Order: sequence, then structure tokens, then C-alpha cells
Amino acid sequence: MKALALDMGGSHVGCAVVDEDRILSRSALEVETASGLSELLEPLARTLRGLLQSASLTATDCAGIAIGFPGIVDFRTGKIYDTLKKYEDAREMDLVGWCREQFHLPLAMENDARMALLGEAYAGAARGYQDVTMMTLGTGIGGAALMHGSLVRGKHAQAGCLGGHLPVDFNGRLCACGNIGCAEAEASGWAIPAIAREWPEFEHSTLAKMTTLGFREIFAAAESGDAVALALRDRCIRVWSSNVVANIHAYDPDIVVVGGGVMQSASVIIPRMQEYVNRHAWSGWGKPEVRAASLGNEAGLLGAVPLLREVIDETKV
Amino acid sequence: MKALALDMGGSHVGCAVVDEDRILSRSALEVETASGLSELLEPLARTLRGLLQSASLTATDCAGIAIGFPGIVDFRTGKIYDTLKKYEDAREMDLVGWCREQFHLPLAMENDARMALLGEAYAGAARGYQDVTMMTLGTGIGGAALMHGSLVRGKHAQAGCLGGHLPVDFNGRLCACGNIGCAEAEASGWAIPAIAREWPEFEHSTLAKMTTLGFREIFAAAESGDAVALALRDRCIRVWSSNVVANIHAYDPDIVVVGGGVMQSASVIIPRMQEYVNRHAWSGWGKPEVRAASLGNEAGLLGAVPLLREVIDETKV
Repeated sequence: MKALALDMGGSHVGCAVVDEDRILSRSALEVETASGLSELLEPLARTLRGLLQSASLTATDCAGIAIGFPGIVDFRTGKIYDTLKKYEDAREMDLVGWCREQFHLPLAMENDARMALLGEAYAGAARGYQDVTMMTLGTGIGGAALMHGSLVRGKHAQAGCLGGHLPVDFNGRLCACGNIGCAEAEASGWAIPAIAREWPEFEHSTLAKMTTLGFREIFAAAESGDAVALALRDRCIRVWSSNVVANIHAYDPDIVVVGGGVMQSASVIIPRMQEYVNRHAWSGWGKPEVRAASLGNEAGLLGAVPLLREVIDETKV
Repeated sequence: MKALALDMGGSHVGCAVVDEDRILSRSALEVETASGLSELLEPLARTLRGLLQSASLTATDCAGIAIGFPGIVDFRTGKIYDTLKKYEDAREMDLVGWCREQFHLPLAMENDARMALLGEAYAGAARGYQDVTMMTLGTGIGGAALMHGSLVRGKHAQAGCLGGHLPVDFNGRLCACGNIGCAEAEASGWAIPAIAREWPEFEHSTLAKMTTLGFREIFAAAESGDAVALALRDRCIRVWSSNVVANIHAYDPDIVVVGGGVMQSASVIIPRMQEYVNRHAWSGWGKPEVRAASLGNEAGLLGAVPLLREVIDETKV
């Protein structure tokens, strides 16, 4: 099965033509999420047509268009319940109609973290597994879960994808989602600068001189022996590990896949997460394996075929 | 459908003959869990026969025997993965054989909290709902979840039933399960005495003079204005509420049902949980309703018919 795939991120949209678990052609469109989705539709259509051309295909060779969207999405209806302040106009748009008009193709739409998990399960680190949870460490903490081979979605389309919003501290910081002490509020890209600046002795750390303050800077400074950076890194890993165990207890997976840019430091993070899981996860059958994601930015795009297959199978029933 | 039902608790086993959502006859057997299940089998068989007699039925009128067991159980095979130090010998026993020998009936076995949720969904506070999470506040914190009308079980039979073992404090207390800062470790019957005794000014509280120290004593002292008891009660309710939100984020239910002895103080607890959910749960579609369980000790027994129906339907396939 061939498909068109869009993976809508905060700073760019990944676009691809895929054939099963291979990407035939691919490009990325820089975006300003503030400006909304409607004015992106024309450039997106143009980009997809260009990608079809460079793969020597036409839209009729494809089974459909799959979109990974950073929000709460009901894949069955394409309805967007919550945009999380990205592409806010998408809620009111008729994307099904757009796909039909522009390409005569059906649309399948899913939360971006769920798409990434579908991709990793179809073609990446979780290939061959039916029971997987995934966490994506980035600006926020994305989550997704596969149970018995199916995405966990829930009545209102928000199960599984709020894995980063399971609390780790009931006395903790207010999260962007409104909850208290979510893993995302305690150790995500957006949360870490404020946490770092409040850290004791922060003003004496090499971090104090940096203009941007993210995982990359903290992990680098920790490698150089900076005490504040080491403490912050340690705290992040404990928060993530506690959240991994929460997701294991919630969804009972065989493996946990961890993605996101900070996985450049996978050799520091994964062994410590695994140790935490081995010591603290309650799983009489054995210990779930913690693995780094393997597909990077391609994960969401490679989720296109399994998602479309599900939708097309459903409409056949 | 009529059925025999056993609900195996820590201090007694509930026994009943049920007909759909009604209990025809019922009694309870006092037990010493330390002594194991094997020596209970004879008295249990005797009790069930007596209950059949008082309901003017025989075993052939029943579709099967359903057992709610306090551990990790695979209902499909009756295999017990983890006994949690209760009825430890049950792991090695052939309960399927026992039911066949004694009553010529099939057995369905499930985790006790899942059975209680099945009962509440079939005949109690969750009747008519397909998407429900339940938490049971007692010696431990039991959990269970229903999604799209089906119990959440997971690959290794431990999804949903570890709802009380989602962490609320990654710097918290060690749980009996081995994890750090589970809701159960921070606000359950077994955890509360140690937490209370470490509380500042505990020695000046009326609680200091009590020989037993549980929810009942703390809630009563709080009603009388004891400052330590008020602080402890407040902390328990915040831990439970944080855990309720964790379970909402994990399983996306319409309603949350809360059971356990402390629900005698439902009028204090439920409104505060609801307020916390309204303020902090991320649910664009609306706010899940928090309700007290309505069936008390009968919930597990009334889970018998829906559980057996599932098993019997499965074997027909």
C-alpha cells in the first residue's frame, strides 16, 4: 500500500510519499503554527504533488492521506477535539473534504504521538511487538500505547496519548494542561528552564551563562562535571523513569520505546531507565525492556500505512 | 443466568448464589489468609451448597462459578500470576478441576477489583456506562478500568488493576509493590499509620492516643477539629484526587467510581475529588463525574454473571 503522509510538528510539517514501511520521497515545510493551518493547505498540496512526481507516482496510486496532528484527534471521524494551541483553526476545517478535492483520496488522522508509535511498531524499535508504550521527550512529553496490537484511544480519543500527563508529584508544578505535577510539568523542554533557574546554586553553574537552556545544554554541562547540571539531569531521568513505570502499570506492555531529541544521550538515559524499571515496576511476568526509538522524525510518516489500513478495513466492515 | 460467586477478601470470603443482578442467598466465611486457600476449599464447598439449598436451587441451575481473587489473575486461563501474599498456595492449585469435581461447573476467575467494577457497571453506580474507572480505598488501593464496555486487562493481566500503583510522588515512599511513591504508598490503609506518626506535632494530636490508626479514626478526629487529623485527611484526599486524574488521563472514562470503607465519608471526599477533577483533569469533551460506589461488599459478587457471560461467550466462539 502506498500513501501520502503529513506529520504536523510545531516548527515544520514532515511530508512524504510512503510505500508500506519505506519512504519513497520526503521533504519538510517550515511553518509558523501561530499562523494556522488554512494558509498551509496550498503549500502542502503543492509539496505532496511534487513528492508524488519525484516518486514517479500519481495520487491514484495511493490508498489515502494520513495526517499526524499534535492534539486530541478522533481518527474515526477526523474530528479535532483539542489543538493544544497549535493550528487552532484546524478544528473548524473540513480536512476530509480537502483531501477528496485535492487528491480524490480518503483521510486518516491521528494524534502525532500515536502515529509515531504506529511507525515504530510497523518499521522501527517496536517491530514485532503488540504491546508497547511510547514516550517522546521534547518540548512536551508525548505518549502512546498499543495493547494487543491496537492503539489505546478511549471513549473521547484521549487515552494513551496523555502518558506524559500522568502525575509524578501531587505537590508539584502546574502543567500547561491544567493538572498538577505531570511528568511534562516536571521534566519537559518547556518546563526545564524555570526548574533550572530555581535550582540552588544555579547562578554558579555554567548553565547560568547560556542564552538557551534545554536538555542539550544540561546534558552537555553534566558531561563536563557541572554539579547543577548533574543534579538536573539526574532529576529529569528520575521523573521520566517514574513516568515510564506509571505507563507500564497502566498499559502492561512488553517494551517501552523512548523517543525525542534528547535520545542523542540514549546511552546515559536508557540504562538508567531500565535499572529503575527493573527495580520498581511491578510485573510478575518479567521486566519490560526500555529501548530508544529508531526512526526519529520518520516515525510519524511511517505510521501512515498501518493507520490507513485500519481506517480502510473499518469502512469495509 | 444464575451463578455461584466467591469474593476472596483478606479477612473473609463472600459467598453467594446470584441471579443476574440479584443476590439470592449470601454468607461470609471468616478466614486467616496466612493459612492458605487449600484448607478453605471444603468449607467453601459446604457454604455454597448451603446457599444453593436456601435458594431452592442445585448447581445444575447455575452457569458457572465466578471467583474474585486479590491478585494478578488471567481470567482466560484461571492462572494466578501474583498473590500479593494472600492465599499464596492458590498459585499451584487446580481450581478449574475443583469446580468441575465439586459442582460440575466451569470457573471464571478475575482480579477482585475488576470484579467489583463489573458488579458496579452491571448493577450499581456505573450502570449504563461503558467507560469507567474504579478505585477502591482500603488496606491497599484497588483499581480497575472499563473501556468501550470491556475490562482493561493487558498482555500480562495487570493493566487497569494497578490503578492505585500509578505514582503520585517520584520522591515518595517505597510501596509494598516495590515502586516509589504509588498512591497506595502515600494514602492507603497500610501506609497511613506510619505517615501519621511522622507528622509534625503528631504527639499533640488526639490521634496519638489511639491504639489503631486508620481512615476512620483520622476522619473522625478531623470532624472534631484536630489539626493533625485535618492535615492528614486533606493530604489523603489530594493524593487520591491526583490518582483519580492519573486514571482519567490513562483510561479516558465518562465516570469514576470510588469504593471502600472510607466512603462512609463520601460526603466529604467525593465533592473535593470532583472539584479537583474539574480543575485539573485534561478532558476537552467535559468533566468525568466522580461517584461513590453503591454496592459495597456485594459489588464483587454481582460481577459474577457479567464475568461468566464473557467466558461462556468466549468458549462458544
